[in-house]
Amino acid sequence: MSYQAPIKDMLFVLNELADLSTINQLPGCEDATADTVEAVLEENAKFCGEVVAPLNHPSDKEPSFWTDGQVTTSKGFKEAFKGFAEAGWQGVQHPADFGGQGLPKLVHTPCTEMLNSASLSFALVALLTDGAIEALLTAGSDEQKATYLEPLITGKWTGTMNLTEPQAGSDLAAVRTRAVPNGDGTYKIFGTKIFITYGEHDMAENIIHLVLARTPDAPPGVKGISLFIVPKFLVNADGSLGARNDAHCVSIEHKLGIKASPTAVLQFGDHGGAIGTLVGEENRGLEYMFIMMNAARFGVGMQGIGLAERAYQQAVAYAKDRVQSKDLAGSAGPVAIINHPDVRRMLMSMRSQTEAARALAYVGAGISDIAHSHPDAEVRKQNLAVYEYLVPIIKGWSTEMSENVARDGVQVHGGMGFIEETGAAQHYRDAKILPIYEGTTAIQANDLVGRKTVRDGGAVAKALIAQVRATEAQLADAQGADFAAIRTQLVAGSAALEAVVDFVVANTKSDIKAVFAGSVLYLRLAGIVLGGWQMARAALIAQQKLNAGEGDAGFYKAKIATARFFADHVLSQAGSLRTAIVDGYAGVLALDNEQF
Amino acid sequence: MSYQAPIKDMLFVLNELADLSTINQLPGCEDATADTVEAVLEENAKFCGEVVAPLNHPSDKEPSFWTDGQVTTSKGFKEAFKGFAEAGWQGVQHPADFGGQGLPKLVHTPCTEMLNSASLSFALVALLTDGAIEALLTAGSDEQKATYLEPLITGKWTGTMNLTEPQAGSDLAAVRTRAVPNGDGTYKIFGTKIFITYGEHDMAENIIHLVLARTPDAPPGVKGISLFIVPKFLVNADGSLGARNDAHCVSIEHKLGIKASPTAVLQFGDHGGAIGTLVGEENRGLEYMFIMMNAARFGVGMQGIGLAERAYQQAVAYAKDRVQSKDLAGSAGPVAIINHPDVRRMLMSMRSQTEAARALAYVGAGISDIAHSHPDAEVRKQNLAVYEYLVPIIKGWSTEMSENVARDGVQVHGGMGFIEETGAAQHYRDAKILPIYEGTTAIQANDLVGRKTVRDGGAVAKALIAQVRATEAQLADAQGADFAAIRTQLVAGSAALEAVVDFVVANTKSDIKAVFAGSVLYLRLAGIVLGGWQMARAALIAQQKLNAGEGDAGFYKAKIATARFFADHVLSQAGSLRTAIVDGYAGVLALDNEQF
Repeated sequence: MSYQAPIKDMLFVLNELADLSTINQLPGCEDATADTVEAVLEENAKFCGEVVAPLNHPSDKEPSFWTDGQVTTSKGFKEAFKGFAEAGWQGVQHPADFGGQGLPKLVHTPCTEMLNSASLSFALVALLTDGAIEALLTAGSDEQKATYLEPLITGKWTGTMNLTEPQAGSDLAAVRTRAVPNGDGTYKIFGTKIFITYGEHDMAENIIHLVLARTPDAPPGVKGISLFIVPKFLVNADGSLGARNDAHCVSIEHKLGIKASPTAVLQFGDHGGAIGTLVGEENRGLEYMFIMMNAARFGVGMQGIGLAERAYQQAVAYAKDRVQSKDLAGSAGPVAIINHPDVRRMLMSMRSQTEAARALAYVGAGISDIAHSHPDAEVRKQNLAVYEYLVPIIKGWSTEMSENVARDGVQVHGGMGFIEETGAAQHYRDAKILPIYEGTTAIQANDLVGRKTVRDGGAVAKALIAQVRATEAQLADAQGADFAAIRTQLVAGSAALEAVVDFVVANTKSDIKAVFAGSVLYLRLAGIVLGGWQMARAALIAQQKLNAGEGDAGFYKAKIATARFFADHVLSQAGSLRTAIVDGYAGVLALDNEQF
Repeated sequence: MSYQAPIKDMLFVLNELADLSTINQLPGCEDATADTVEAVLEENAKFCGEVVAPLNHPSDKEPSFWTDGQVTTSKGFKEAFKGFAEAGWQGVQHPADFGGQGLPKLVHTPCTEMLNSASLSFALVALLTDGAIEALLTAGSDEQKATYLEPLITGKWTGTMNLTEPQAGSDLAAVRTRAVPNGDGTYKIFGTKIFITYGEHDMAENIIHLVLARTPDAPPGVKGISLFIVPKFLVNADGSLGARNDAHCVSIEHKLGIKASPTAVLQFGDHGGAIGTLVGEENRGLEYMFIMMNAARFGVGMQGIGLAERAYQQAVAYAKDRVQSKDLAGSAGPVAIINHPDVRRMLMSMRSQTEAARALAYVGAGISDIAHSHPDAEVRKQNLAVYEYLVPIIKGWSTEMSENVARDGVQVHGGMGFIEETGAAQHYRDAKILPIYEGTTAIQANDLVGRKTVRDGGAVAKALIAQVRATEAQLADAQGADFAAIRTQLVAGSAALEAVVDFVVANTKSDIKAVFAGSVLYLRLAGIVLGGWQMARAALIAQQKLNAGEGDAGFYKAKIATARFFADHVLSQAGSLRTAIVDGYAGVLALDNEQF
């Protein structure tokens, strides 16, 4: 159950698909030279593989636990987080001004993948802290930045996002937590928040809760929500810790997976009121929270990819080790099960989907860097629109993909997969949270349909499809059955996606339920087409390298075969998804509630 | 988390699709009148719903446990099994001569579904006992039948199947357990068996282990395996219990799911040898075990359907109860989430797949009854071939379907689904064993390809496809968009299935790995096409009833809508599966082992 970061594939994607050599020309990104990036990845791989990965399974067996308001995290977590912080890994993509390394998101992305492969539960504390940092960078006052950013970026403190309340679930309009002004610029916060990841723990000196709440005169619904900083310990002017704030963890959840990650119920203000300070302006909390959420959503997509990679590696190791039954083509004795075609099919399915999702996410990260750092405002704007289109897909598709991969990982293990000691079952349990938190796939799909497709009349989607078509043209010039098959499926896939975009744009106004009946399927279709596109690009580049006699021929041949597999087995589902969306809404909506 | 058996759908399938009125004309099946069957189902539903279903979640939280060789089952299991036995439920389809009710398999099938909906873990003890009964009925001596059958059929004792050994897994050729003749007709058994469901427990007076072992001069491989009865307690001539046999449970597994069902490691012969008696003839053990396994495989398929139904009911209840977010079409306040299109899509997906798998399995059960009881040997033979074709599909497809359904069940619950207290997560964990035990889906698919398709040149498969085509012709005469859509997808589905059958028949000899690279996909394709066929038949019958103004119009309209949903969302995947099989083997087989 060890983990070795797939550095070779990561570097291939960074350099060949996500175009690192362009990204590191952007202002502020110059440090990300190819050599530096390779060194960062190798160092990170070492830390994740040696320090964090060994904690994953033991921490599932002995999860974090709650006693009298305190949470004791799983054995080794505290020390590992200290190492993580000291090595500067929390600050990879954060500004050097506040103690970060100031590297592009494109470089942080493989680091996040590795940390999540090593331990989803452990990685969550960093992911939530990243979200808090992003929100403060965007909307915090200079004083707030000066107080909170450096301790967060250097991993001295950690951050949380406090959205969900028992009655509200995903519906933030229903948030009830109250913020009452004290007259001195601070507020007293009262309310209950649930599902707060790392809402309490023992791995850092302080925890900075970012909390959605309503001021007394706030309008109802989402337009009356403000964002507050509510630290676990108040912070003195000199940065030292002051009094314990009235924000207490009253319990943690008993969960299906990510058991080492404490999921807290936090009670604010049961003893007079928790002290909070407003972030940015009143009633703009949701907007700021979306900054955290977009970062976190991308991060959860990376969790899916990280988990899938780990499950794949574990399944490959088992399949090579486990000897059972003769080879179909007729060996004398039993062979390692990797030689059995169905085991190989599952491994290829796991591998190809993981690689496709990785490629799409890294490409998305590069686009985000352009959107943030390009000198031309118009280029920034265009790239931001593309990145925002991709975020719900990267989150929703990569995480649902990871469920399937984790499922196949158990299946490769046969009966042993069902026994908890092998660890395959842990991935299956852990994966199930990913399409749920930071917005379920349905919520990602709502975002994809509403804000990302209908609002611009499908313009960004169509621009991406045009790029897919350009790759199709290149495929037409490539030789051999593999490229022919990839092209056939990509052509069918982009046609299906275009038809669905047209359907969505044409019908959302007139028949919104018909469109939303297929919104998750649209997200999935976009994922497989755009992921398949990246695999097709990868195959074309691999063939160029082979033709030129450059690099590792085995790696490039495997890339082409993996792209071929993805096309025939995954991308080929595009037509079915199109049918399910364009024709299938009738069946979704036909029954009355009582008929269920 | 209550459970109400879907009696209305069960009776519809029994009467309209599986043709109970023909089955109960068969010799020996005359008791299964429509009225009797309805009464049996209602009585069984009551027992399962009131006695067993409430045990399911508590028994997951407090599983069976092992102490010094003894297994204490979860609270309530012992009493429930007593009630089950006393009411005669273990004997529904077993011969009246040995204390059973002598009803057809078609009647037992819904009873099994209900018991598995109520509790997968509990139902396993009955399922394994059924397998032991089948093997003894087929291959046991008169003395063995007289000794063991009545206590098993009346639920006084229970049965187990002992196949797997640590080194052997699914590869029975590697079985090492030894059987040494004592010279008095008995044998001493030595060996270790793992993954023995209910291999030890406290719910019955005795446990009858059916054990695969090798006699001293047995040939190697599967041709040298014999089957032995090894009771936990030896049985005296008068049927009373004698000495404790040397078959001991040394541990039970810590599993992902079905935690209340003890999975034993059994040690035979560590204290001098466990006493066993040979079943049937030496070296024919595998053949007899296949009798148990075929019964058990069908039974595991029913587990999938039972679990899917339970997960569906729980998701529907939650979706009706949970109020969150406004209606898309614009309500004032938040609404129950069943009104959100994506929740509805998931519920329809769960529902339609469960109904399709139920219909196919019940139809299969009826065919099995004809295969066993028809007076005409030729009819019996033909129906046996069809039934045997269907068994791996019913097992493999229904169980993989149940994983997807359980997954959607969690997703419908959102964040609450990940919290163990809601129970949705239990179904997700429990489901994962179903495509693994009693032969993984790959093993079912090997059977489907090798013994069930290639051996007869695809004749049975083609005969089924011809029946599907007849239904397509009827669909062409039906009115309206629903039937047009169903027909479109069924026509495409049967064409894909036929193409794949041709591919399998044509290529297995010349390129066996290419065919087996898609064997599981062929099984899945057969499942969705044959399941879709049953849904199409159901929709046609429902329309006839509506036209005639008969029965419950709401039920029939829902059946048509559900068939429509299945066609657009599930059956539409047929083309992709065909591509993945016929073109996609190249990608499966391209990599060398070292490239993984």
